[in-house]
Amino acid sequence: MEACQPGMIDITGCRVSLYPMKDQFATPILTSINETDTSAVWQQTDLFSTLYRGEPASVIDAASALFINAYDEQTHLVGEYTFSKGCPGDLAGDSFLNGQQAKPNAANNQEKGDFLVDCKYSFYAFGEKNYMEEIAAIVGMAADHGLNPRSAHYVTILTGTASQLFNYFEAALAYAHENLSHYVLEATISVNSPSKEVQDHV
Amino acid sequence: MEACQPGMIDITGCRVSLYPMKDQFATPILTSINETDTSAVWQQTDLFSTLYRGEPASVIDAASALFINAYDEQTHLVGEYTFSKGCPGDLAGDSFLNGQQAKPNAANNQEKGDFLVDCKYSFYAFGEKNYMEEIAAIVGMAADHGLNPRSAHYVTILTGTASQLFNYFEAALAYAHENLSHYVLEATISVNSPSKEVQDHV
Repeated sequence: MEACQPGMIDITGCRVSLYPMKDQFATPILTSINETDTSAVWQQTDLFSTLYRGEPASVIDAASALFINAYDEQTHLVGEYTFSKGCPGDLAGDSFLNGQQAKPNAANNQEKGDFLVDCKYSFYAFGEKNYMEEIAAIVGMAADHGLNPRSAHYVTILTGTASQLFNYFEAALAYAHENLSHYVLEATISVNSPSKEVQDHV
Repeated sequence: MEACQPGMIDITGCRVSLYPMKDQFATPILTSINETDTSAVWQQTDLFSTLYRGEPASVIDAASALFINAYDEQTHLVGEYTFSKGCPGDLAGDSFLNGQQAKPNAANNQEKGDFLVDCKYSFYAFGEKNYMEEIAAIVGMAADHGLNPRSAHYVTILTGTASQLFNYFEAALAYAHENLSHYVLEATISVNSPSKEVQDHV
């Protein structure tokens, strides 16, 4: 959206919004923000979202931890994600581009991420002539990760464990980081939806 | 995301997800779906969202009613919107392209939409050489509608009444419908956020 020069800096960023559908919705959000190790990323929380910026693997590591740490077995929780590279607005976070791709939450995410989620997502590539091929490559990787991609209006649907999904996003963003100067990945992740139960029993 | 041929059909669509942050979150969603007049649009509800497809003004009319009808003064409510044209996937809804741009919820939206909301949004134009100019035109219209657009990482922020915001979206999508073959507008609308109170008192 910003009036940026694509490609002016190579930083990956993510905007994460958590929506726990319960009266005490603030508690899991604030607890998760505190529990997530952000030593490898630049961090900022605004009215809508928490932002992480840095190297792709480190951004995914923090962004996935934020969802996994907010999860409990009872609550319908939705996470809205915007991953992007190529439209920085400013340089905030460039000190985290040290080549280490650190993932301080990896063990925690692997241990706690074994619950089933559904995801809708769209991948947009800008300034590429063959952008449909790039999109096809990204969706193909979802099948390789066992996430059973299905087309729906305006999105692709995925199903798998939280760990599977975020591992896929890590691979997809690593591919995009290598091959594209400017992209956006919009994803919405849902767990414990009552609509899911209705759907599965039809 | 889908492997589409941009421009193959001229239908506008919107995916709306409502997130009422309360224990009884299903009630306002289902009530609002029932109260929203969908006589001018094609409609479908899936695990994530309710979809409306048809002419731009009619799609905005239904999409805004869904948020306004779900609103109450106490609940922190978030609406996640994906508006798009140019990547249909299939032809569902083309029977609603009758040139009438009907807005059966307009009076209701005007009467009930006088509450303050915050919005983050991004506008993406595809296959246009001068897409940064098109984005600038769309953001400029937000200022004209009194929504005070501000840049943030990956999004633009707007503030105004729900009616003001949806009137702006109607104007923006009418412009996009005339001038662009393929676009996506991603918007997240928030009301009654406790973070807002904290922010306003700092």
